[in-house]
Amino acid sequence: MSPREMKFMQAAIDLSRQGMHEGQGGPFGCIIVKNDVIVGKGCNCVTTYNDPTAHAEIVAIRDACKSLNHFQLTDCELYTSCEPCPMCLGAIYWARPSVMYFANTRKDATAIGFDDSFIYDELNVPIRERAIQTIRLEIPDALKVFEEWAQKPNKTVY
Amino acid sequence: MSPREMKFMQAAIDLSRQGMHEGQGGPFGCIIVKNDVIVGKGCNCVTTYNDPTAHAEIVAIRDACKSLNHFQLTDCELYTSCEPCPMCLGAIYWARPSVMYFANTRKDATAIGFDDSFIYDELNVPIRERAIQTIRLEIPDALKVFEEWAQKPNKTVY
Repeated sequence: MSPREMKFMQAAIDLSRQGMHEGQGGPFGCIIVKNDVIVGKGCNCVTTYNDPTAHAEIVAIRDACKSLNHFQLTDCELYTSCEPCPMCLGAIYWARPSVMYFANTRKDATAIGFDDSFIYDELNVPIRERAIQTIRLEIPDALKVFEEWAQKPNKTVY
Repeated sequence: MSPREMKFMQAAIDLSRQGMHEGQGGPFGCIIVKNDVIVGKGCNCVTTYNDPTAHAEIVAIRDACKSLNHFQLTDCELYTSCEPCPMCLGAIYWARPSVMYFANTRKDATAIGFDDSFIYDELNVPIRERAIQTIRLEIPDALKVFEEWAQKPNKTVY
């Protein structure tokens, strides 16, 4: 790895340590870089924000999108101190940065008590066997809304 | 399905239609119910909030957690007008409601132009073959932060 990437990853790791010791939440940090400038950052704030979605990556993505005034992280790099959980990996795909770097792995996260690997496994479990009971209600009106979207003029696609 | 579940799902579908026609974002709605009361709701607001994480389920989870003043949706039901994408499914697992109902499927979402199925597929692709370039930087200091978490007294586990 180059000193440049090392420097940005260390900034994410520093955030993970600082947030944990300040009692913000779990030991995770993330920064987002565009043109060598940090445009977004976040540490895990689940327990202080009372928000289960306030993982470091989600906090950093929301922060960067606010800075850039756009819902896409085009030409950005994302540095996260740990491999993203499925929620955060999904968020990264929707935000569409050009590259993602991580340090610790999902197995490292599981080893200190986090559900990351379990949730990765659940994504591939058939719906009727999921740990959280999951039931499909087939309702034609729901599909009708999708048809209305398909036919809507002047929509902003994302 | 019972009239009770039908009523709550219709509320989620109504939100999906309303948000779309008001130009909030895509055609998706979600509500969260505890003890027969709607405690959280959301429609997709990606393009109005400039927030790629503002899917209906995430907005509703954050709204419900704020109402309940907790980061867990214990004993709650979640009704979403479409099968959650991996980001939202992950968020649901972290929020831990007791049951989740959905109407449209991920294939229905893909058919009107959303990346849901693609992201489900990417989760199972080896890291070095991902569509978003993904690189591990193995850094001992990152793992040291995890050890500090493991040894931290009085932490709030989530």
